[in-house]
Amino acid sequence: MSDKDTSPTPSPAPPLPTGPPPKVTNRGRSAGPTASSNSDSTDIPDFEFYGAPHPRGVPPLTEFLDISGVDMMRRPDESNKVEHHTMYYNSDNLIVRRAQEFQVKITFDRPYDSARDKIALEFVIGSSPQYSKGTYIPVFATKERQSSWAGRITHTSGNEITMGITPAANCIVGKYHMYVAVATTYGIRRTRKEKSRDLYILFNPWASDDAVFLDDEREREECVMTEMGIIYHGAYDDIAERDWNYGQFNYGVLDACLYIMDRSEMPITNRGDPIKVTRKASAMMNSRDDDGVLVGNWSGDYTYGVAPTSWTGSTDILLTYASSKMPVCYAQCWVYAAVFNTFLRCLGIPSRVVTNYFSAHDNDGNLKTDIILEEGGRIDRKLTKDSIWNYHCWNECYMTRPDLPAGFGGWQVVDATPQETSDGMYRCGPASVQAIKHGQICFPFDATFVFAEVNSDVVFYSRRKDGTMEPVKVNRTHVGRMVLTKTPGDLTRRDITDQYKFSEGSTEERTVLEKADEYGCNREKSNPPLADVDLVVPTLEVSVGDDFELSVEFINRSNQQRTVDTYISGNMVYYTGVTRSEFLFRDPTVEIDPNQTVKELVAVKSSSYMRHLVEQANLNFIITGKVQETGQIISTMKIVALRNPKILVEVSGGGRVNEEMMASVQFTNPFTFSLESVYIRMEGPGIMAPKSKYYRMIPGGSSLTWTEFFTPQRVGTTRMIATLDCPDLRQVYGQATVTIKP
Amino acid sequence: MSDKDTSPTPSPAPPLPTGPPPKVTNRGRSAGPTASSNSDSTDIPDFEFYGAPHPRGVPPLTEFLDISGVDMMRRPDESNKVEHHTMYYNSDNLIVRRAQEFQVKITFDRPYDSARDKIALEFVIGSSPQYSKGTYIPVFATKERQSSWAGRITHTSGNEITMGITPAANCIVGKYHMYVAVATTYGIRRTRKEKSRDLYILFNPWASDDAVFLDDEREREECVMTEMGIIYHGAYDDIAERDWNYGQFNYGVLDACLYIMDRSEMPITNRGDPIKVTRKASAMMNSRDDDGVLVGNWSGDYTYGVAPTSWTGSTDILLTYASSKMPVCYAQCWVYAAVFNTFLRCLGIPSRVVTNYFSAHDNDGNLKTDIILEEGGRIDRKLTKDSIWNYHCWNECYMTRPDLPAGFGGWQVVDATPQETSDGMYRCGPASVQAIKHGQICFPFDATFVFAEVNSDVVFYSRRKDGTMEPVKVNRTHVGRMVLTKTPGDLTRRDITDQYKFSEGSTEERTVLEKADEYGCNREKSNPPLADVDLVVPTLEVSVGDDFELSVEFINRSNQQRTVDTYISGNMVYYTGVTRSEFLFRDPTVEIDPNQTVKELVAVKSSSYMRHLVEQANLNFIITGKVQETGQIISTMKIVALRNPKILVEVSGGGRVNEEMMASVQFTNPFTFSLESVYIRMEGPGIMAPKSKYYRMIPGGSSLTWTEFFTPQRVGTTRMIATLDCPDLRQVYGQATVTIKP
Repeated sequence: MSDKDTSPTPSPAPPLPTGPPPKVTNRGRSAGPTASSNSDSTDIPDFEFYGAPHPRGVPPLTEFLDISGVDMMRRPDESNKVEHHTMYYNSDNLIVRRAQEFQVKITFDRPYDSARDKIALEFVIGSSPQYSKGTYIPVFATKERQSSWAGRITHTSGNEITMGITPAANCIVGKYHMYVAVATTYGIRRTRKEKSRDLYILFNPWASDDAVFLDDEREREECVMTEMGIIYHGAYDDIAERDWNYGQFNYGVLDACLYIMDRSEMPITNRGDPIKVTRKASAMMNSRDDDGVLVGNWSGDYTYGVAPTSWTGSTDILLTYASSKMPVCYAQCWVYAAVFNTFLRCLGIPSRVVTNYFSAHDNDGNLKTDIILEEGGRIDRKLTKDSIWNYHCWNECYMTRPDLPAGFGGWQVVDATPQETSDGMYRCGPASVQAIKHGQICFPFDATFVFAEVNSDVVFYSRRKDGTMEPVKVNRTHVGRMVLTKTPGDLTRRDITDQYKFSEGSTEERTVLEKADEYGCNREKSNPPLADVDLVVPTLEVSVGDDFELSVEFINRSNQQRTVDTYISGNMVYYTGVTRSEFLFRDPTVEIDPNQTVKELVAVKSSSYMRHLVEQANLNFIITGKVQETGQIISTMKIVALRNPKILVEVSGGGRVNEEMMASVQFTNPFTFSLESVYIRMEGPGIMAPKSKYYRMIPGGSSLTWTEFFTPQRVGTTRMIATLDCPDLRQVYGQATVTIKP
Repeated sequence: MSDKDTSPTPSPAPPLPTGPPPKVTNRGRSAGPTASSNSDSTDIPDFEFYGAPHPRGVPPLTEFLDISGVDMMRRPDESNKVEHHTMYYNSDNLIVRRAQEFQVKITFDRPYDSARDKIALEFVIGSSPQYSKGTYIPVFATKERQSSWAGRITHTSGNEITMGITPAANCIVGKYHMYVAVATTYGIRRTRKEKSRDLYILFNPWASDDAVFLDDEREREECVMTEMGIIYHGAYDDIAERDWNYGQFNYGVLDACLYIMDRSEMPITNRGDPIKVTRKASAMMNSRDDDGVLVGNWSGDYTYGVAPTSWTGSTDILLTYASSKMPVCYAQCWVYAAVFNTFLRCLGIPSRVVTNYFSAHDNDGNLKTDIILEEGGRIDRKLTKDSIWNYHCWNECYMTRPDLPAGFGGWQVVDATPQETSDGMYRCGPASVQAIKHGQICFPFDATFVFAEVNSDVVFYSRRKDGTMEPVKVNRTHVGRMVLTKTPGDLTRRDITDQYKFSEGSTEERTVLEKADEYGCNREKSNPPLADVDLVVPTLEVSVGDDFELSVEFINRSNQQRTVDTYISGNMVYYTGVTRSEFLFRDPTVEIDPNQTVKELVAVKSSSYMRHLVEQANLNFIITGKVQETGQIISTMKIVALRNPKILVEVSGGGRVNEEMMASVQFTNPFTFSLESVYIRMEGPGIMAPKSKYYRMIPGGSSLTWTEFFTPQRVGTTRMIATLDCPDLRQVYGQATVTIKP
């Protein structure tokens, strides 16, 4: 080979680095980063030249207006906060709502001359603000509208003017900075950035142009302004209540809500759209995928955090998340729904927590929940895997749906509880309640899933020897038995089942199910004949630790003798319907004369269930049987939600704003055994921030009293709520109503 | 305090552990884990007793059938693989499609007696197989259908029977195990698990009951069976092609595709639904969120991986991902689309790669792309942030849409390229092409986004001194200029723009845009008057390294003199429309007499652009101007895609199956400078697995030849393709057609 030969020769390729792929930049992919943080900001210069800077510098601008003062009129008792319904927010900054005028006072060095002076208020949000993106909005002191924000001078007095600003009805929701700008011959001169001129703009349910407009003052008062709520749980025929302090106006909560959106890296420009905001937030409330607010835990072991049953309100959770920047431990469905509710109300989106009794879950939006029986009629626990939750809580929020055909606005389901088997869907909604009711489940988002939660059939299969199965009973009314929410302006419950479903057996109901069928929701088509023996278990009220008797009624509706091989199984279940253990089993053979009823009584000793107790103390009795004469399968299920002891909350003293008062919590351990590692929590909106107390041990039979002083800050009727929580006893509540006079 | 006082006293609460939250178990949340891995399996026992085990053990079961052999008939030339169109898969296992009968031969120890013997073939997939979930399917040798799988004996001969099995048309797609089971008096006795009885069941575009049925043999041949494809790029008026070896039949590719679904933890039960499979896969093709297959990189720096322009096919990528279990570096849109195409064709979902020229991107589904001009008419690069990609590739796949109203089945858009600003959406589709064409963008999934990619307006704003902006020109035809795909059975391109949009200016087009408006897609409503001066730049064909002349034509359509202050800006851009640098700027003032045309010639020296060169070598000329007499803004944009040198691929010898042949690649460095760190890759479906060669340096002007021997395995016409890639020169291609005779 001559040394002049330049013909290239191959070499061994250099090895590629191993290990995880390096961080890739955005170069070549996009012109600049997307603004996705409300806490980032870009400073606008004090002086902005038109064209190139003046070669000899700027001459003194004495002829132009000089700004000597800006008053945001941000005190809670000033008209801005009162008229914008933001007076309860514990914040020093101005907080207003979209599509509604607010006032700002500006003082100059001389009287303002509308013919000569040109001024603008500039509103800026996020980094790299841009006019065309709605993140930089100059509003002029004229009637001219600028991209639908309006400005006008409402009052002039000496060197002072008052400007009225109406933000666009679809403007971005979040924290803005306001500059005052004066146009000069050489450029624009503006105020320096100062925190006191930061303002928050929220959604506005009172403004007819806003996508969240809700034309009902009672509903708005409840779903935006009310801090103290009730969340229903227990069983549909034995409803229990939890009080919850949403605390949307508490100090730091609004900033925490904006932090949640920043954390999600949601582009700033999307934050005026309630559809996008609620969808994103439904993902961010849970820690799955995105390090969102709350870690779900249904295991009963809450050593490394706070038990879901122990929380009294959202404030602690949101402030902890915003300060630690780490998911908070732990939540179950009502905690997700409650914190989500705070987020929504805080930003001004009307919202409420609803409870669906017997909620079909983890079945990936199928309309079937399978229960597998052995050939003899006994339930096969190994094969029965779908779950029906005793209850499930989600949120409804109110908005128009311009992305859907007309008629699907109004209440929308959003659900922040992560669904385990739903194809990686750790967000849900907004799904139109109207669309769910009418079976129009082809519309986004996730309507199919919610439809299944209220409409699934429970199918009982009998498993043959060769492994195949035959449907033997279809219960079409068990799931979605009742949907409840709190009545606006009242402490009672409101049944809103009819907003989700037409009445059972109606023509409309049949049409809806056919419609859903068209969209691929296949129901069980078989219709096994009904047995002529009915099984009924009357509702029971039992306190934790009591012995009781379960009555199982066999009603023979035929004219012949019936003999039933019966299996009565008592199970300790989580509220998710998941069984922890079977604590009772009987298999009586029951004979029933023609047209007669036989009562089979089952004695249940507290000793048999106490050591299996799990939180929420739900006993699930499953009674199945095979009728010897006909071979038919009969079955029924009964949830007995054991009643926990209560704690007594008493409030005394003052009763006036700024006068000290006293709250006491009393509890007696009703059991013979000691309760260990006990937390008691107490809080009340406008009267007391969350407080807690820890007791290493409460011996059996002993009583305790915890007393705290507090000073109410607000007039009105509110409640003080308390919880007690320990590994052996969860979900113990108490509350007292307090009225504060001026 | 007496020592008998048991009244509990509070203590300091124990500190909560700090650090990230602990891993939470599923206890209390669900009855069991969801099967989400096809590679997991549960063994079924060899002998399953009815009821309790027989007290004295099982008597010898001599009277029952004994299985002495099972033949899956899995050779490529046997009828199963031929009739199921799976003969090209390089796999030892049986591969069949749903809703179509396949044959299995079973040999017993004596002749089968249909009256006396009861046998079943059991098909099992994933862990904890269940009849009611479709993961355990027993098929009997009778005409009786079991959950829509059918079985029958098609042939009997001596001790041997042939059974025909027809899997359900909606059964799970993936790898099953087959057992042969015989019923005895005491229980079920079955074959032991053995790998040779694993079989794959795929989607079936040939079966009318299957959701992916495509009633066109030409299309099926292309979109399921064809391995070698063409992907279009370049500019709409200067189209370039890339060859791509999808390689869906290569050894290991099918297992890699199943691994992708396992890796996504997609529940097994969802894997029969092409909507869910394609949606999930669109998320899994990119590494965002979920450690999916490919890492996107548009930066030009590919040091730690393979440059997107360097790949020749999907095989290397999929096999690397499946073996390393780590995302593969690097991809841009066509690589995502190509690998996704392999995935879809491999599983039997008809699919094709399409290219949309001038694709609106990163604008979060808005129908506006903003270009901001300074008052004089020059583009303001700082404020212009939206991008229009010169082209963008996505996939279409074919299926019914039972989740939507009638009429939206057929081709569906799925897009695996992560969208940067789309509210965290790193998945896209399936979106019905019909729905996009008709503006019915309210239907899932992500139709709004795709609609914007083909229908956005380009709005030119003039930015005033006070920061406000005025729309001065709206171009409603630039975006979505053309949509191309390969013609079935041919190497030519097919324009399918009309499947996405009605023709420009038609009544239907207007109706569609109004419809989209109803669903919240707001277009630019203003209609600035058209200028009476037109700007035209004729198409140019230029090779990398050449000097050339750009001709800009000013056409004065008025009866008056026109004077245009013109800005001509030449920019090196990425194919994403993102500018790397401006290499040329001119600002001539052009005078045009009434009704005349003036040509302004701009000389472009290679020396001015060569040092700015980025991959794909796209020059973007933006010409804007302001007409002095009318104040109107005129503008045009021109992409000049520089032509790269080619590599020459030659194939010689044999031309017959199993006869050795020779492929040579020749390349001459046309530049005066050396090319360094050069990779050359070559592959051809059915003839050569991917091979590559590395050259440390190719001096300017020098040539190289690389020769490889190969042995074709299949009859037919195919292509050998090659790429050359180095940091200074990307996207150099060559190919040769090869016909192999038997």
